[in-house]
Amino acid sequence: MLNANRTIGQEELEARRVTVNVTGTERSSAYDVVIRGGIFDECGSLIAEACPAHRYAVISDSRVAELYGERMVSALAGEKLESVLFEFPAGEWNKTREIWSDLSDGLLRAGFGRDSAVVAVGGGVVGDLAGFVAATYMRGVPVVQIPTTLLAMVDSSVGGKTGVDTSSGKNLVGSFHQPSLVLIDPTALDTLSEPQFIAGLAEAFKHGAILDEAYFVRLAEDLPGICARDVDKLSQLVARSVEIKAEVVGRDEREAGYRRILNFGHTVAHAQETVSGYSWLHGEAVAVGMVLEAALGEAIGLTRPGVADRLRDVLISARLPVKLDAEIVPDHLMKAFELDKKREGGHTRFTLVSDIGTVAGSAEVGWTHEVPEETLRAVLFG
Amino acid sequence: MLNANRTIGQEELEARRVTVNVTGTERSSAYDVVIRGGIFDECGSLIAEACPAHRYAVISDSRVAELYGERMVSALAGEKLESVLFEFPAGEWNKTREIWSDLSDGLLRAGFGRDSAVVAVGGGVVGDLAGFVAATYMRGVPVVQIPTTLLAMVDSSVGGKTGVDTSSGKNLVGSFHQPSLVLIDPTALDTLSEPQFIAGLAEAFKHGAILDEAYFVRLAEDLPGICARDVDKLSQLVARSVEIKAEVVGRDEREAGYRRILNFGHTVAHAQETVSGYSWLHGEAVAVGMVLEAALGEAIGLTRPGVADRLRDVLISARLPVKLDAEIVPDHLMKAFELDKKREGGHTRFTLVSDIGTVAGSAEVGWTHEVPEETLRAVLFG
Repeated sequence: MLNANRTIGQEELEARRVTVNVTGTERSSAYDVVIRGGIFDECGSLIAEACPAHRYAVISDSRVAELYGERMVSALAGEKLESVLFEFPAGEWNKTREIWSDLSDGLLRAGFGRDSAVVAVGGGVVGDLAGFVAATYMRGVPVVQIPTTLLAMVDSSVGGKTGVDTSSGKNLVGSFHQPSLVLIDPTALDTLSEPQFIAGLAEAFKHGAILDEAYFVRLAEDLPGICARDVDKLSQLVARSVEIKAEVVGRDEREAGYRRILNFGHTVAHAQETVSGYSWLHGEAVAVGMVLEAALGEAIGLTRPGVADRLRDVLISARLPVKLDAEIVPDHLMKAFELDKKREGGHTRFTLVSDIGTVAGSAEVGWTHEVPEETLRAVLFG
Repeated sequence: MLNANRTIGQEELEARRVTVNVTGTERSSAYDVVIRGGIFDECGSLIAEACPAHRYAVISDSRVAELYGERMVSALAGEKLESVLFEFPAGEWNKTREIWSDLSDGLLRAGFGRDSAVVAVGGGVVGDLAGFVAATYMRGVPVVQIPTTLLAMVDSSVGGKTGVDTSSGKNLVGSFHQPSLVLIDPTALDTLSEPQFIAGLAEAFKHGAILDEAYFVRLAEDLPGICARDVDKLSQLVARSVEIKAEVVGRDEREAGYRRILNFGHTVAHAQETVSGYSWLHGEAVAVGMVLEAALGEAIGLTRPGVADRLRDVLISARLPVKLDAEIVPDHLMKAFELDKKREGGHTRFTLVSDIGTVAGSAEVGWTHEVPEETLRAVLFG
């Protein structure tokens, strides 16, 4: 939330703008990600320009709606844009088909037509759920993503993934639906809890680890300012992460190949999340996953020795976890890999780095790598 | 169903192939529609080639599954393709989010992964529902459409519209998801009920009425053979209708403009369907709608005088209805138009023809036309 007592420096009034070009795979998808401290109150004109619509359905969860719901409706009204606020109870466990149905029915009852647009304001759950409402409402209406958590800012708001969880797992039902515009106000992070904030940093470190060593180094150096929620440092961080993600997604919207490089740390993270019943925050699981997958890469000779240690040191300095939950039963985790394996039709595959800043692989050999089960067990539980 | 006692002539062994090219708006969408009598038993190889997948989920309703379910699984097994049959209770009232959820959960329980594909075998309800399952399963898997009703063959299997009904109306939740392949066996129409068959003809006449007078004339001349379910006549009919639909959809996948020409007859049809609680078959309502919308066009001077009469005569000869349900209360119908109007943000608009074979409009002025309320009332109830 924009803190009224806070002085806004010149630097946070300068907007950073990243254009995401998704070519070849989905309907004409070029959209801007605009990053600026205090952007909330002026977002009406940006939305009017990039996403003109007859009416706007502002979708948020109960917690975020309290902070930003009315403010968003007012910002739209300031540009003579009609909107209605729809909210659902906060919590990952509400990212379901039932809530998606309820939201869709709410829009129908309120008479929203095909010429409407959705404005998603909140964290990853809101973005995924509201994005899926937009993707399927009358066979698709545009969506503006306004992420309010660090994880959503650096990761989920860009790339067009939408969806819901089912009892069988996360994000199993959904679709690809690129936003028309992404608006990011780093001052919104002032109200984010410390664990949520820290967890979001893991994905930023991941972007550095796979594609940009200098960014990785700068993040580590800037940690004090970042953790103090310095708006300029945060704007820089978000902008660079969005640039990296935009470049990857632009080359491969649908995870057919190159996009999988974003999964560094995620195979282990997903397995751990599954067996621990999602008691960890996603970013925390990813931090552990990156360290262990770097160790896997070292074990099979794909990753330069020392990379796992370097990752571990930096993530510890950011107060992120770097070890598997001690209560995890090895066979349960292996079983979770098995399930993942079945879903991909063959073997468990990992995204690996050859060094910090350099993902391992190529278009020819692919971007994921097999690790023998013995190696997996030895590195994870050895 | 292929009738075992029936002699298959040479002509029905010749495949007709129409390629649908949807450009610019959706990910690389070029797919073939293959039309041939007896194609069911050899569809394994066609599917293997056009839609390779690790496993196939064959989705059908209870009625069609009885006729074709096992046969489809066998045809796939003949090419060493693994498949599982999923069925849901037949009936338009089952085209819901609940059945969509049940089917998706069935696929998840059966361990279908991202490298799966859906094979939809049935009429429009199956195509829409199974298509929506495919569109949203793990953010989208390919779908092969195998329509078994005339309406689905000439209309809904091509174009990529998928979706379900809600209590607020038809097809309000769904998405665009182009098939990878469409396989049409005109001999499947042998088992289609007479009313369903006749209703399907309405959409074929519509294709002639908007874009191809010669086709319209030929349909009228060929009616005896068509109604006797002559396979060659039916193959010709389906192929020409698919060509027309493919050309329109190829120019405008998302109904932004040109695709609306396919709505000739449909504004009145939808309003009548709404007020009569869907007691008419869709094609029957479209037949009435075309005659009345031609009359509307004549009333505002856009349609050549005599077109409504010509349409009426031909549709009567096909035993299609040409008058509104006598029990309809005019104000209820006008209210249904109002609702439609609200959904489009402005006024009720109609797709009109200037003559048989020529839709009225242009890219510049648009493809739909306003009709004043007084004219609407005078023509519909005058």
